[in-house]
Amino acid sequence: MGPASDGEDVDTQEAIMRATYSALCKHGYANLTMQAIADEFDKTKGVIHYHYDTKEALLVAFLEYLLDAFNRNIAVDEDEAPDERLLTLFETLLFGPPERGEFDHWELMIALLEIRTEAPYDEEFRRQLTHNYETVEATLVAIVEDGVERGLFRDVDPELAATLFLTCLNGARIYQVTLRRDDVAQLTSDALETIVRDWLCHPEGPEDR
Amino acid sequence: MGPASDGEDVDTQEAIMRATYSALCKHGYANLTMQAIADEFDKTKGVIHYHYDTKEALLVAFLEYLLDAFNRNIAVDEDEAPDERLLTLFETLLFGPPERGEFDHWELMIALLEIRTEAPYDEEFRRQLTHNYETVEATLVAIVEDGVERGLFRDVDPELAATLFLTCLNGARIYQVTLRRDDVAQLTSDALETIVRDWLCHPEGPEDR
Repeated sequence: MGPASDGEDVDTQEAIMRATYSALCKHGYANLTMQAIADEFDKTKGVIHYHYDTKEALLVAFLEYLLDAFNRNIAVDEDEAPDERLLTLFETLLFGPPERGEFDHWELMIALLEIRTEAPYDEEFRRQLTHNYETVEATLVAIVEDGVERGLFRDVDPELAATLFLTCLNGARIYQVTLRRDDVAQLTSDALETIVRDWLCHPEGPEDR
Repeated sequence: MGPASDGEDVDTQEAIMRATYSALCKHGYANLTMQAIADEFDKTKGVIHYHYDTKEALLVAFLEYLLDAFNRNIAVDEDEAPDERLLTLFETLLFGPPERGEFDHWELMIALLEIRTEAPYDEEFRRQLTHNYETVEATLVAIVEDGVERGLFRDVDPELAATLFLTCLNGARIYQVTLRRDDVAQLTSDALETIVRDWLCHPEGPEDR
């Protein structure tokens, strides 16, 4: 995250990230200029340029910053049973963490979508988003493997199940944010719970269905 | 689509839409200017302004044009069995129509994502995308209802199943386009086929599982 060397630099960088976030929420990616970011920042534009040579360098650092916030939100409780761990993770990914984090979940989702949209044109964004995809995928795969090992889940392909969940959650968030359809997120939550209970969980016998 | 009155106007509008599409694929939404569109058009910029007063009016017409192309791609064959109809529709939505349409599927997906990203800020885009969401949802609900009625599918909530499929397909397309992950689209296709065969299709008895 740039030339961090002491506490003051880190505070300044945090303030620049906050300013970028405010500017993005206010203007959208298509209108996100260095000036718009500086307008949200309480020091001079020169301070921003000192830390980030170009707008691209700033945005790369900003994406990393957003993904860190995102990942802090999805920590799983290893003591929960695998099916409950899945459902908790789905809720967090759809509606945000139970305790409100430093970002509004909705604004965070819009910001991530905006930067995601630039990824076809930007290799560094693509690299970071791919790393994030793989981190969440690995979390889901580990939970499914655990459930299969414990005999709670059927013997499914964990990667296949993880892909189903990830694409579904991502699609729901995008409809929710772009169409302002909270009902789609709620229906998706219900659908995923049905799939976990009705497909993924091992049937004890035909009475269970 | 603007002041269409005769064949010549329609041809001109079609040419403007093509130019917008080329400019968008080349520059991305954030850099899509009227000049960039005019550069892809073989008549003068004045002709564009004659048909569309503002860039916003042009982009609203353009979104309608893209969604028309999208909808021509997803026509379903009513003679197919419900499960096959679903799987055919999934393939088309993930990989494009079997016969190559007037657009490259990949470019069409990027263009739709770019405009979708503007939807939180634009009511008209949101209205059109919502209408499109509801059209595809209705198609999926009708297929699921048909399958339940014929006793081929279990007695699931058709809206719940349709939401699961739609969010999953949308999420997969977005990963595919933004992360260049064709493998995610392929895994999603396999996952959806598993869900149709293993969850949605009615089990004849416990031996089937």
